[in-house]
Amino acid sequence: MVLHMIGLGLSDERDISVKGLEAVKSSQFIYLECYTAILMISRERLEEFFGKPIIEADREFVESGCEEMIQNSKDNIVSFLVVGDPFCATTHSDLYLRCVEQGVKVEVIHNASIISAVGCCGLQVYRFGEIVSLPFFSEKWRPYSFYEKIKKNRENGLHTLVLLDIKVKEPTEESLARGKKVYMQPRYMRTHQAAAQMLEAEANLKQNVYSEDTPCMGLVRVGTATQKIVSGKLSEFLKLDLGEPLHSFVICGEMHHIEEEMYNYFLYKEGQEGVKLIQEESKEESKSEDDEDDQ
Amino acid sequence: MVLHMIGLGLSDERDISVKGLEAVKSSQFIYLECYTAILMISRERLEEFFGKPIIEADREFVESGCEEMIQNSKDNIVSFLVVGDPFCATTHSDLYLRCVEQGVKVEVIHNASIISAVGCCGLQVYRFGEIVSLPFFSEKWRPYSFYEKIKKNRENGLHTLVLLDIKVKEPTEESLARGKKVYMQPRYMRTHQAAAQMLEAEANLKQNVYSEDTPCMGLVRVGTATQKIVSGKLSEFLKLDLGEPLHSFVICGEMHHIEEEMYNYFLYKEGQEGVKLIQEESKEESKSEDDEDDQ
Repeated sequence: MVLHMIGLGLSDERDISVKGLEAVKSSQFIYLECYTAILMISRERLEEFFGKPIIEADREFVESGCEEMIQNSKDNIVSFLVVGDPFCATTHSDLYLRCVEQGVKVEVIHNASIISAVGCCGLQVYRFGEIVSLPFFSEKWRPYSFYEKIKKNRENGLHTLVLLDIKVKEPTEESLARGKKVYMQPRYMRTHQAAAQMLEAEANLKQNVYSEDTPCMGLVRVGTATQKIVSGKLSEFLKLDLGEPLHSFVICGEMHHIEEEMYNYFLYKEGQEGVKLIQEESKEESKSEDDEDDQ
Repeated sequence: MVLHMIGLGLSDERDISVKGLEAVKSSQFIYLECYTAILMISRERLEEFFGKPIIEADREFVESGCEEMIQNSKDNIVSFLVVGDPFCATTHSDLYLRCVEQGVKVEVIHNASIISAVGCCGLQVYRFGEIVSLPFFSEKWRPYSFYEKIKKNRENGLHTLVLLDIKVKEPTEESLARGKKVYMQPRYMRTHQAAAQMLEAEANLKQNVYSEDTPCMGLVRVGTATQKIVSGKLSEFLKLDLGEPLHSFVICGEMHHIEEEMYNYFLYKEGQEGVKLIQEESKEESKSEDDEDDQ
């Protein structure tokens, strides 16, 4: 019959489109992709809103090909829910192709993604260069490949959207070696960690791609009631705690007049509501988080 | 009180989010921004769906500062509807700032935009460079500035999303000179026109940024029931008529394995449903369309 690939948007159960909700209501099976992005609400709340049970599709489910879901889609109406927009992750192209090869019709219902919603910070989406992903550094693995991409964007005067690492249902290295997976606690990179990692790359590669004074913006919980946008110099973000996930980060390129006005409107002000200063203890805590990878 | 800036998404009245619909239903005034993008359905259909009247906010309304809307937002709940995502056009930053300066709370409700939805063609959104806008050429005005941007993207192996010109409620030059505006018919650039203009730029600037054989993709009416994605060489698009607006175009950069598979899946096949061959007459027609600007 049909597989609806439905974007859930950025925040809660009411971000689904009317069309998406109708598709869900007509479905016999509902799967939720829950590893490339995180749902800001519980699965139970989503189930209650839909009045239907939801099957969680974790990393293993998706990477092993979603075979069960494709089979179900042959004779049923099935919904596959994806946080944000359904095509902002690679593996869904693979799913799409496998469906059409097996005669399953795929209907895509788009929704907001941070890639377009980033415009709410006032920087024009047309003036962004390549998107960069920033992974959690561990003691042994500190990849600086993002640095070169930011360099090219900045050479062209473009802004850079930095997507911060999400580790959900990641097996520990130790457990992989033993052959029996044990999963780590979910981890979400926050803007102060991102700032530290980026400054470390600059300190080591020394190509003056950016500096402590480079204008940046932190976008947290975009689309939720507690959304916050804060702008300031890169080094300022080292000491700002913007709270709960999800966090995204922007390195500003050349700003036009109206972009500058928005940047100034969002400037961090001392004692700003919802922004805490990083305490020494939480620095320690974030340090020990970093070490987790190396166990 | 509050101004809700609400994205309508890509296609019809049911692309609004549940949250957006609730905001509209609670509003005393509803404005529709109707010049930076086009609504694929009639305003009347939208009014019927909402059960409320909608005030059209055209270019003059928005550029003159939306004063009436801001004033109404001081004591009422107001919705400002924008096709796609509300922050994919500059002028809304300006509106945002003017609202907050005057004490009007602004709530943004995001939605799908072609900028993220472009992922449905199978190319990874992470591998796109700067977005390019392609304006209608006229006899006297043939700006090639897009060429340099595409060049940079291609040097970095990145894909380029080319947004095709939309001319809605454009006054004729003649009427501007006379001081009494007369508006042209709306015009929407289509992929065959885009291909012709891009090849002209290459023929004149000769920097081998792309060629007749460069892999490209046409994305038309994304998110609607008649959506079509077609891939092929740039020169092939010269002769393909992908039908009604809106059209977007992609110049592919280096493709990964799964991207290539999607590209091949969407390859134009002779006689493909919904794709017509450009006839000589329609070439003439598009030529005379081009000339309109020069009257």
